[in-house]
Amino acid sequence: MQKGTLLVVSGPSGAGKGTLCNELLARRENAKFSVSATTRAPRPGEIDGVHYYFVTNERFDEMIEQGEFLEYACVFGMNRYGTPRKAVEERLAQGIDVILDIDVQGALNVKKAMPEAVMLFLLPPSFEVLRKRLVGRGTETDEQIQKRLATAKSEIALASEYDYVIINDQLETALRQVEDVLDAESCRPSRWTQWLKQFREDAEQ
Amino acid sequence: MQKGTLLVVSGPSGAGKGTLCNELLARRENAKFSVSATTRAPRPGEIDGVHYYFVTNERFDEMIEQGEFLEYACVFGMNRYGTPRKAVEERLAQGIDVILDIDVQGALNVKKAMPEAVMLFLLPPSFEVLRKRLVGRGTETDEQIQKRLATAKSEIALASEYDYVIINDQLETALRQVEDVLDAESCRPSRWTQWLKQFREDAEQ
Repeated sequence: MQKGTLLVVSGPSGAGKGTLCNELLARRENAKFSVSATTRAPRPGEIDGVHYYFVTNERFDEMIEQGEFLEYACVFGMNRYGTPRKAVEERLAQGIDVILDIDVQGALNVKKAMPEAVMLFLLPPSFEVLRKRLVGRGTETDEQIQKRLATAKSEIALASEYDYVIINDQLETALRQVEDVLDAESCRPSRWTQWLKQFREDAEQ
Repeated sequence: MQKGTLLVVSGPSGAGKGTLCNELLARRENAKFSVSATTRAPRPGEIDGVHYYFVTNERFDEMIEQGEFLEYACVFGMNRYGTPRKAVEERLAQGIDVILDIDVQGALNVKKAMPEAVMLFLLPPSFEVLRKRLVGRGTETDEQIQKRLATAKSEIALASEYDYVIINDQLETALRQVEDVLDAESCRPSRWTQWLKQFREDAEQ
């Protein structure tokens, strides 16, 4: 069986990552969201190992020390979140594509820890559209929107570090491109090492 | 307008490269075969610049000296063939995907000369199928078939040097994968440099 792909998705707030990732998972049976570890308490209905791995602060520290995270973010005094490497690797080994929706800094850390990760940067069709989408939500203050736009600006400067850039103008087109990327990546020679070995052995006989 | 992709296709005789490339061109309007330069005389109906660039031996030598080839093959005393860089670059600049069906040695030379080339290795589903396809053609002697199989063996050893490996079991599946590769490659950040620059400029205002 072929290994799955770790697909890391970044992009500014308002690019439509959430909708795109949810729709992608709805369409592809063998794709799953990465499950994060967190120090926060479970909310009603949340299941350990499904929604999150709920861990104590002590266990989180230990996981950092043992190098068990592909990436983690710590904000002083806040709940902590991280992506456990083992959970990702187990799913990939089962042939499952793992989707990780994460900010640019976290994404670049994942790439360092797992160079075979496929890095995808999602963009709105223009900065003006991004601004309009954020304003249109009507859920944030002007100040919050300005902050998001400033973050977007600095994140977009790192888009060229990614493997793929996808412009989310029409969701359907963007989704098809993400699926093209996943399908193309499954044709990488590194996925076919065993197959190529077998082929060459057969040729020797 | 976005630049085209140079798609280099290699694979053993019997993998079905010819059929696949022809069908790909039939489906994709903006894909064209690369046009080779050759020292052989035109055959009836062949048009200079369409089927080949017909050049003299002196001109071919000059093209080698001037570094005008992405790759060329010289067999002593035989007609010579090469891929002129300028013709490929002009088409790519027009947004045309250029397909180059070429042996492994030539392909690796192209990659050296133009690192952005996308390298695709086409394989039959098994060595046994390859043997049967070659025998089934009924056009070659046992000795010729043995020679082709030996060449296949040594070429397949280099498949892992390619960007993508595609198993041509069902033509339709293989074609879809090649199209996925072309579509995914058009999402590379290097194709969006100008766009990303514009986006960042808009964000500055």
